[in-house]
Amino acid sequence: MPNKYEITTLGTARFPSPLAHASFVNEKRRVLLDAAPLGKPKGTPPSFELAGPRKRLFFDPKATRIGVVTCGGLCPGINDVIRGLVMVAWHRYGAKEILGFRYGYAGLIAGSSAIPMPLTPDIVDDIHKDGGTILGTSRGPQDHAKQVDFLVKKRINILFVIGGDGTQRGVLDISREIKRRKLPIAVVGVPKTIDNDIAYTERSFGFETAMSAAQVAIDGAHREAKAVRNGVGLVKLMGRESGFVAVRASLASSDVNLVLIPEVGFDESKLMAWLIERLRRKSHAVLVVAEGAGQKLVAAQGKDKSGNKKLGDIGIYLKEKIQTQETSDQRPMTVKYIDPSYIIRSQPANANDSAYCFRLAENAVHAAMAGRTALAVTRWNSHLVHVTSQLVTSKRKCVDPKGALWNSVMNNTGQPEL
Amino acid sequence: MPNKYEITTLGTARFPSPLAHASFVNEKRRVLLDAAPLGKPKGTPPSFELAGPRKRLFFDPKATRIGVVTCGGLCPGINDVIRGLVMVAWHRYGAKEILGFRYGYAGLIAGSSAIPMPLTPDIVDDIHKDGGTILGTSRGPQDHAKQVDFLVKKRINILFVIGGDGTQRGVLDISREIKRRKLPIAVVGVPKTIDNDIAYTERSFGFETAMSAAQVAIDGAHREAKAVRNGVGLVKLMGRESGFVAVRASLASSDVNLVLIPEVGFDESKLMAWLIERLRRKSHAVLVVAEGAGQKLVAAQGKDKSGNKKLGDIGIYLKEKIQTQETSDQRPMTVKYIDPSYIIRSQPANANDSAYCFRLAENAVHAAMAGRTALAVTRWNSHLVHVTSQLVTSKRKCVDPKGALWNSVMNNTGQPEL
Amino acid sequence: MPNKYEITTLGTARFPSPLAHASFVNEKRRVLLDAAPLGKPKGTPPSFELAGPRKRLFFDPKATRIGVVTCGGLCPGINDVIRGLVMVAWHRYGAKEILGFRYGYAGLIAGSSAIPMPLTPDIVDDIHKDGGTILGTSRGPQDHAKQVDFLVKKRINILFVIGGDGTQRGVLDISREIKRRKLPIAVVGVPKTIDNDIAYTERSFGFETAMSAAQVAIDGAHREAKAVRNGVGLVKLMGRESGFVAVRASLASSDVNLVLIPEVGFDESKLMAWLIERLRRKSHAVLVVAEGAGQKLVAAQGKDKSGNKKLGDIGIYLKEKIQTQETSDQRPMTVKYIDPSYIIRSQPANANDSAYCFRLAENAVHAAMAGRTALAVTRWNSHLVHVTSQLVTSKRKCVDPKGALWNSVMNNTGQPEL
Amino acid sequence: MPNKYEITTLGTARFPSPLAHASFVNEKRRVLLDAAPLGKPKGTPPSFELAGPRKRLFFDPKATRIGVVTCGGLCPGINDVIRGLVMVAWHRYGAKEILGFRYGYAGLIAGSSAIPMPLTPDIVDDIHKDGGTILGTSRGPQDHAKQVDFLVKKRINILFVIGGDGTQRGVLDISREIKRRKLPIAVVGVPKTIDNDIAYTERSFGFETAMSAAQVAIDGAHREAKAVRNGVGLVKLMGRESGFVAVRASLASSDVNLVLIPEVGFDESKLMAWLIERLRRKSHAVLVVAEGAGQKLVAAQGKDKSGNKKLGDIGIYLKEKIQTQETSDQRPMTVKYIDPSYIIRSQPANANDSAYCFRLAENAVHAAMAGRTALAVTRWNSHLVHVTSQLVTSKRKCVDPKGALWNSVMNNTGQPEL
Repeated sequence: MPNKYEITTLGTARFPSPLAHASFVNEKRRVLLDAAPLGKPKGTPPSFELAGPRKRLFFDPKATRIGVVTCGGLCPGINDVIRGLVMVAWHRYGAKEILGFRYGYAGLIAGSSAIPMPLTPDIVDDIHKDGGTILGTSRGPQDHAKQVDFLVKKRINILFVIGGDGTQRGVLDISREIKRRKLPIAVVGVPKTIDNDIAYTERSFGFETAMSAAQVAIDGAHREAKAVRNGVGLVKLMGRESGFVAVRASLASSDVNLVLIPEVGFDESKLMAWLIERLRRKSHAVLVVAEGAGQKLVAAQGKDKSGNKKLGDIGIYLKEKIQTQETSDQRPMTVKYIDPSYIIRSQPANANDSAYCFRLAENAVHAAMAGRTALAVTRWNSHLVHVTSQLVTSKRKCVDPKGALWNSVMNNTGQPEL
Repeated sequence: MPNKYEITTLGTARFPSPLAHASFVNEKRRVLLDAAPLGKPKGTPPSFELAGPRKRLFFDPKATRIGVVTCGGLCPGINDVIRGLVMVAWHRYGAKEILGFRYGYAGLIAGSSAIPMPLTPDIVDDIHKDGGTILGTSRGPQDHAKQVDFLVKKRINILFVIGGDGTQRGVLDISREIKRRKLPIAVVGVPKTIDNDIAYTERSFGFETAMSAAQVAIDGAHREAKAVRNGVGLVKLMGRESGFVAVRASLASSDVNLVLIPEVGFDESKLMAWLIERLRRKSHAVLVVAEGAGQKLVAAQGKDKSGNKKLGDIGIYLKEKIQTQETSDQRPMTVKYIDPSYIIRSQPANANDSAYCFRLAENAVHAAMAGRTALAVTRWNSHLVHVTSQLVTSKRKCVDPKGALWNSVMNNTGQPEL
Repeated sequence: MPNKYEITTLGTARFPSPLAHASFVNEKRRVLLDAAPLGKPKGTPPSFELAGPRKRLFFDPKATRIGVVTCGGLCPGINDVIRGLVMVAWHRYGAKEILGFRYGYAGLIAGSSAIPMPLTPDIVDDIHKDGGTILGTSRGPQDHAKQVDFLVKKRINILFVIGGDGTQRGVLDISREIKRRKLPIAVVGVPKTIDNDIAYTERSFGFETAMSAAQVAIDGAHREAKAVRNGVGLVKLMGRESGFVAVRASLASSDVNLVLIPEVGFDESKLMAWLIERLRRKSHAVLVVAEGAGQKLVAAQGKDKSGNKKLGDIGIYLKEKIQTQETSDQRPMTVKYIDPSYIIRSQPANANDSAYCFRLAENAVHAAMAGRTALAVTRWNSHLVHVTSQLVTSKRKCVDPKGALWNSVMNNTGQPEL
Repeated sequence: MPNKYEITTLGTARFPSPLAHASFVNEKRRVLLDAAPLGKPKGTPPSFELAGPRKRLFFDPKATRIGVVTCGGLCPGINDVIRGLVMVAWHRYGAKEILGFRYGYAGLIAGSSAIPMPLTPDIVDDIHKDGGTILGTSRGPQDHAKQVDFLVKKRINILFVIGGDGTQRGVLDISREIKRRKLPIAVVGVPKTIDNDIAYTERSFGFETAMSAAQVAIDGAHREAKAVRNGVGLVKLMGRESGFVAVRASLASSDVNLVLIPEVGFDESKLMAWLIERLRRKSHAVLVVAEGAGQKLVAAQGKDKSGNKKLGDIGIYLKEKIQTQETSDQRPMTVKYIDPSYIIRSQPANANDSAYCFRLAENAVHAAMAGRTALAVTRWNSHLVHVTSQLVTSKRKCVDPKGALWNSVMNNTGQPEL
């Protein structure tokens, strides 16, 4: 039985790669799970397969029919990934039948009113300059058997799936159904999460654009806070269970005085005491709160369509609480609250994310053409790698409250333990 | 009695201007109130005094003591105006005693805990690169007699006042108290209104930056709306009584399908019928609503500290109403609501606003040095002019529902009369 | 004989306007040439026709065939104008046969290899988000008779021409040829000049975007200059005969110490003496030079294809001269020279220019549908107006060395008369 | 003798760290040099020391006197690093005597006319919002003995050095002189290179900002090229010996058709043949050339003050050559050439670089306080590490023409081997 790091291959790779100048991957090189081990490892340390072009392909490249689907919330770079998939499959591998399924997994069901959209280089040429997704999206899973029926009906050989945690679980389920039916269909995921919280993914695409876009809100909160006495700028950022956006945006800004994230609890009364003291000394304060922080303070029930737990609104909660605090000079606190979520996630990718998206897409095509399936293309220890869909959905990546990154936040903000 | 277009002068201008190369204003040239008259005017048409440097000054420039105060909400360009006032007064007129009063009109009262801040070229050199106001601000009027007491105590000769409608009313009141006491103190306003709604002011500083900044929100709303079926992007923009920001930002975007402004009423059920039909045809829609639109639908009472009527939240109201509408395909509407207000108003001025702010500031100094008082420096028919504080606060500038600008909106959005 | 302010009309306006809600222009209102007259005018002062929708049209709107052509160098907003023309003609007037002629006036000649491009709302929907021109462009005039032959062959009723000074002269020539042949074809210009130098045009589209884009270069020059001892940042900006870009960008930046424009001569040795003294005091300096300044210092011959005089490269000339100057501390001057021209002119329009472009395009359609011809749509004294092609090409708009704008530059930079 | 991966320590760490909540580094964890080894390593694989806070310090933190110097050309983020050093040293370690040496290594010589600048949190608070360096910079080495004399005279305990390859060689030389004299002075480098070419440095600060800023030039070149027939956009980017900026900016843009870098030679006639064919098919082309590419074609002699080989101007060379090519349709090529170098390198850091700069600075302070010397703080395999100054200056990092990154460029641009 293959271990959880081993990638499934559909079968023998019989076709020569049409890539003329490629430096093909040496399968003996693998990317270590732990690049900073404590002492010398015993036995063979766990490692990931390198992404990259393979000399021999499972699919006959020119005859390969490809599908692309995008799921879940918006994130900068989705169109970059779509474009990269189409350009590399078409121009480099000669695969010229590419369908874009519309509006998420719902578009993978026969009878959906949204007809698949043929994707060509002309159609995708400029889409990376815009945010959003040209394919549309939706939340929630669908019946896997029906999805496979539809792939068969559309004669799809490779399905690329751009989406988050739940969507990658779909990759696993669909590929299991495919395996059960012994079909030669590869399903390859490109993890999308603006929270940067997917496991074994050093950095998810769009994340750096998100932290850049968040600066505008933090800058605004800072200016508003400084403009009045006892001014408090409060910014709610993405981060349901992982505070990476809040953490990195705050480090980038260096104007933030307190960061609250889901991974690090806080005592509300200590928080308010800290705030009152901060205003006494400096007359203004900037707070950044990840949406998943302080959930014990805010009531919420149920789940959304993607199966994510609904969150209480910690931003509004804190805003209202802060306004009722008594300050040392008896002047009221003036809270300026900013929730820039939709502005951030709909941005087009910045340069670094665009380049990254292209490389993820390119390597997803390499992987699929070689017959790899049930995997996600990610970056790990600075290399692009293949991670099994099982592993990538096995847990959530979080900010380590004992780690170097959170240390940096404490050193940057000077915030106390609350 | 001087008519309402005539600017009050403190007295005889006895000092020669130190400006070496200036082209001094010819007082016989005046800017017509109406540059597009209907037929030939009878009698002398109303006109404004031109702004600009005068050959002879009321104040001895090097001995002049100057105060600056900023009031009301943030707006792009306040720091540009402060910087311009200091630079021109200091370098061109040689006035080197300049005080910044802190936190709005509250800083013009003796005993305020916020000590005035000396302003020098070194201090203000880079402030125009940042949004907000380095002086701080607050809302609401103060006792005019106490303010004049404070000006006298601080031996201020010229007070520059950057602020909105209510603040310019303060200019009028303070200068009346000064006149009553026969003091040689000039009070000159630079109108600040992100709504662009001050009378006899062709365009207020910061307005163009605001419409630029609003694009980010409209673009986001557009991408979010297009990404899902029956997607509705809803953006609330500034505009308590005048919809200029909503109008101009929508014209700039050309992605907006419906603009709602205070000046043009609408019928809620017609609006919803339009929206359902739009979604049936196009599956997405983008709406921009000025905060003062549709106030009959939303309950609100009382006034804020600046004496402005409190507004009900039409953005939240529409968001919630829209979510309950039944669409033609029975799929729910997905509303993505964006309220970018604080992000917009805290932006640094863009290039055009920065240049404009400098020119307003420069001409405010010219006016005050010449002994002009109780006026605002504005632009009218493409010239910089002096408008009496009385006139500038006599009414609010609004979008004319029968005018060319609103016509352009209808032609741009294709929206119906609701 | 009509005076030079009177717009030519093709004939009787017989068709009712399909614009449902428009406020039609009252022809008795006219925009005064001089909104700041010196004393009371004698007789009827010169004035322009107001732009805007007319109740009755010369062309049967749904049957009207339209052509669009773009000429000369790039400028922010060209695509906005194209889009506006198509959207208003198609959606508001119902004119659904619109051809884009390719690569400038060269595309208006039969047998050109570049086939005209049908323009529809779908095709132009997003083009305003990108710079450049989707139609392509070229320089230089063409044979007017052949152009009119081509318009006749293509059964064009209205030709919209987006271009500069020379291009607007083409509008005049083509419309004269049309008149000679008594053809019912309207030719309407939208003046494009990144130099903002077209006569009777308060502000040309794209100009504000250009001054914004120029900030990036000026900021860079400022940082480079400050980073070393005796650092000189030198930026060459557009402005062949008019220095508006250099002037307004410098006012916006407030970091510029010297602005050189074609309208104001300078003595080279005085300039160098000023620079040496400036470096002695401050150790850095920022200079902005319009490309047409100081032409007596640089040899150049001949004309380009558009008939513009070729310019010597004053930027390179000054850079090299400055490097040889001896400073007061014997350390060499370090010049960092930036020529951002192509970066600036290829930018997409900013928000204010986008809105302006739409309104120019909209009013160009109104004018043409009403049968107006041989005119340009411009803004004057804050109103959109019709100016005859004759007048618009009769002279060049320049910075007045005795006017308020240049005064502001002197007050902003503190530069001496050289 | 310590191997080249071992960091020198000044002596016993006797003082307890004042960091209250830090998770101190476990010295047994080390970052592997090779995270993707080919097969199982024999013996102990080479590895780097982890950066991070140490429990015990060599210096008494509150009594430590610190110097900071910045050398070489501008790069986004220098001010972020300065700010981070000051903030962490002052607020976290309590070291309140911090001197900024002016204008590079020249400021480390007694008798320099530029007096060191005291650095405090108030002074550095906002500097990260601006590009450049507040300390000023210069090129070239200085006499190491005199530099150490000056450090001794100024009673400096820790010197932080921000600069490139040559500057880090200075770190090595200065620390050797210090060692020779047995002085307890730590010298810690933060590598700065906009070319991203420093060895054992996964990514240098400012590099991502540079690739973002380069987009504006590439976008402009693309629009200019597409606007005319046979249009060629040519952009010269940084990259003396390593083409990372050209490579990554081109990947990000996806509008580039050919990338030329120093690491990959090309045949000029093949290049021109490719270009002619490209124009025949597409009528436009975008080329990006790193400044160090094609040096065999351009004559240049000598070295600059930093000891770097002077480069011939390949951008101008190619521009002129291209203009003389004959196209397949006999129309001339129109080349629009953009050299955005100074605009790029003077930008303020983007969000991701800002956060990274803070973390580099923070860890440089941790390293120095613990008595580490003669090292650079870099990132390697996604961890912040200490690399000896010897190793960091031992070679140059280059794009591997056989590696995955260059593969991606070929797949992105579709360019042939030339």
